[in-house]
Amino acid sequence: MALQIPKPEEIIDLGIGQPDPDLLPTALFRSLSLRREDLAYGEEAGDGRFRYTLANWLSGEYDHPVDADQLMVTAGTSQALDLICTRLARPGDTVLVEDPSYFIALKLFAEHGLKPVAIAMDDQGIRPDLLEPALQQHQPAFIYTIPSYHNPTGVTQPSERREQLVALAKRYHCPLLADEVYQCLYFDRKPPPPLACYDPQAPVLSLGSFSKILAPGLRLGWIQGSEATLLSLLSSPLFKSGGGLAPVSSALVEPLIANGEFQQYLVGLRQTYRSRLDLLYRGLCSAFGGRVQIARPDGGYFLWVSFTDGNEPIRRLEAAKAEGVGYFAGPLFSADKGCANSMRLCFAWYPETELTTACNRLASLFEAR
Amino acid sequence: MALQIPKPEEIIDLGIGQPDPDLLPTALFRSLSLRREDLAYGEEAGDGRFRYTLANWLSGEYDHPVDADQLMVTAGTSQALDLICTRLARPGDTVLVEDPSYFIALKLFAEHGLKPVAIAMDDQGIRPDLLEPALQQHQPAFIYTIPSYHNPTGVTQPSERREQLVALAKRYHCPLLADEVYQCLYFDRKPPPPLACYDPQAPVLSLGSFSKILAPGLRLGWIQGSEATLLSLLSSPLFKSGGGLAPVSSALVEPLIANGEFQQYLVGLRQTYRSRLDLLYRGLCSAFGGRVQIARPDGGYFLWVSFTDGNEPIRRLEAAKAEGVGYFAGPLFSADKGCANSMRLCFAWYPETELTTACNRLASLFEAR
Repeated sequence: MALQIPKPEEIIDLGIGQPDPDLLPTALFRSLSLRREDLAYGEEAGDGRFRYTLANWLSGEYDHPVDADQLMVTAGTSQALDLICTRLARPGDTVLVEDPSYFIALKLFAEHGLKPVAIAMDDQGIRPDLLEPALQQHQPAFIYTIPSYHNPTGVTQPSERREQLVALAKRYHCPLLADEVYQCLYFDRKPPPPLACYDPQAPVLSLGSFSKILAPGLRLGWIQGSEATLLSLLSSPLFKSGGGLAPVSSALVEPLIANGEFQQYLVGLRQTYRSRLDLLYRGLCSAFGGRVQIARPDGGYFLWVSFTDGNEPIRRLEAAKAEGVGYFAGPLFSADKGCANSMRLCFAWYPETELTTACNRLASLFEAR
Repeated sequence: MALQIPKPEEIIDLGIGQPDPDLLPTALFRSLSLRREDLAYGEEAGDGRFRYTLANWLSGEYDHPVDADQLMVTAGTSQALDLICTRLARPGDTVLVEDPSYFIALKLFAEHGLKPVAIAMDDQGIRPDLLEPALQQHQPAFIYTIPSYHNPTGVTQPSERREQLVALAKRYHCPLLADEVYQCLYFDRKPPPPLACYDPQAPVLSLGSFSKILAPGLRLGWIQGSEATLLSLLSSPLFKSGGGLAPVSSALVEPLIANGEFQQYLVGLRQTYRSRLDLLYRGLCSAFGGRVQIARPDGGYFLWVSFTDGNEPIRRLEAAKAEGVGYFAGPLFSADKGCANSMRLCFAWYPETELTTACNRLASLFEAR
């Protein structure tokens, strides 16, 4: 099976943040057919029927009304970020990011010539008291945040924090990009609604995706925002030339949402990933006890493990390979190259047996110092 | 049926350059299924099996061997151009374009902050004697050319011209972007092979697409180039994050190429479009006689009509609406806003009855002066 990243032999790599290929629901993608309009250049914001069905589902998920006109279809969140970097920023611009943040987003911003300025987080996410002076000082092109089950830390912003962020974005007329690909991957209770739900007058773009909750190969996601904010993207010649970004994938997924098969799959996926999280979390607590700080997230893909005993995962990458285990070291996620005492572990990619083995290998790798 | 551009009532708009929705082959897209690897993050260059099958088909089409390693999958040529603008240029850079050229490409370059410098064409395409001094003077980020059935002029570069362009790109280390979306839409004899076939050492990217020859909604295309040139794109964090650009569409199209159904459809499509071209071409010749210059192209989508009697289509846009006919006026395609005496007519979007009516309306609109 040819994949972007094949599971390596011998090493159990908890670094990779992808859905377990064995959980991908091939049964939902049989006996498919496409209509004529799915084969034509599609509506620029995405197929109307798909957006209507998506809006209905999201309204229930978010316990907040979402209108089809507040949605545009993307070819996944990476592509959406690329689109936004071109349309809302210019090389040389500053962008404000969390420290730590999704490492490939940081690389993508750098590729666009943007200069990430890192804002520290607390256990409720990015700190507004630091964000506001940074907005004044840098006049950034946008703020990039991951509100729910943050990558890599697992932190979820509570409602009050979200309100503060949205208010700041509005006050400083600064687009707020919320990367919410894990939003619907909650395990016990739902996180607060996406940032785009708080104030229709604020320049907020909430980026959603089917990559983590259905199938990344679909290259299908959406942006939720005010019509004016979406128009700033949709007026690009890219859409004038190519039409909608994902007519075929949206056509394949629309009936799965409309008939509930997708939602049923997602319920099962949440249970599976919760079991994996619990197993890895308990294993790590038992292996490391008070030598680490781990906040158990209530969803998403990642555990963020910070050693308090002087261990620095970034210094043990080679030894980890020899031990047969992998992780992503903290500095990878830090625009300031901090977080040397931390590592990100993904509990989604491997089934429970491998997670147990990986946990044992980590325990033997990071002995007490 | 919701499309990017619905066919307008009452007006027959020969401006729009899209495939006729009624010709889209829905019958080829029934009883489809997807494999697990199609649902996962795919290989960054695109699925290996698809690229192998594509390479085989292209080798036959081009009468020139194409290797799967010289191909990367795109989400269509608009998206490929967007990708390339970000990766191979920086705002403020000059790019060399044909005068006239594909108008949305010009807009896309402008959106990226690039400065198009227009190079005149002759009846063999862009003029090398003007291109070389421009390469010296501007050190452009890239050259953008449409070698076969040029949009809007219909001109096809002969082999010698292609060799000259590729040699110039190599000599000046300047990426040469060949937009070849009409390459396989020849009606009588094949055009010379794509620019990427001439010199594997030259920095040439040939952009192909299924939008004009199968279905634009697939958002599926490819770039042919040397492995080194492709790597300059594939090393982008965009691929590191999202994997392949079109795993699902490529999975749906692969069997259609492998079993020949696509090729069979394409043969029919060429016949249909040739009939439409012939009808419109003869109608225009009969209506305007010596008052216009029209070079009959041997493929593609477009007829380029240049009045020699003082008529300027750009001045008759409102009158055309009243007459119930549409076209795209020359200056739209000109970075220098020239071509006032010309208009582009698409013969692909409408069946023959409408083409005849449109031709009659054009005849009454542009009376002898």
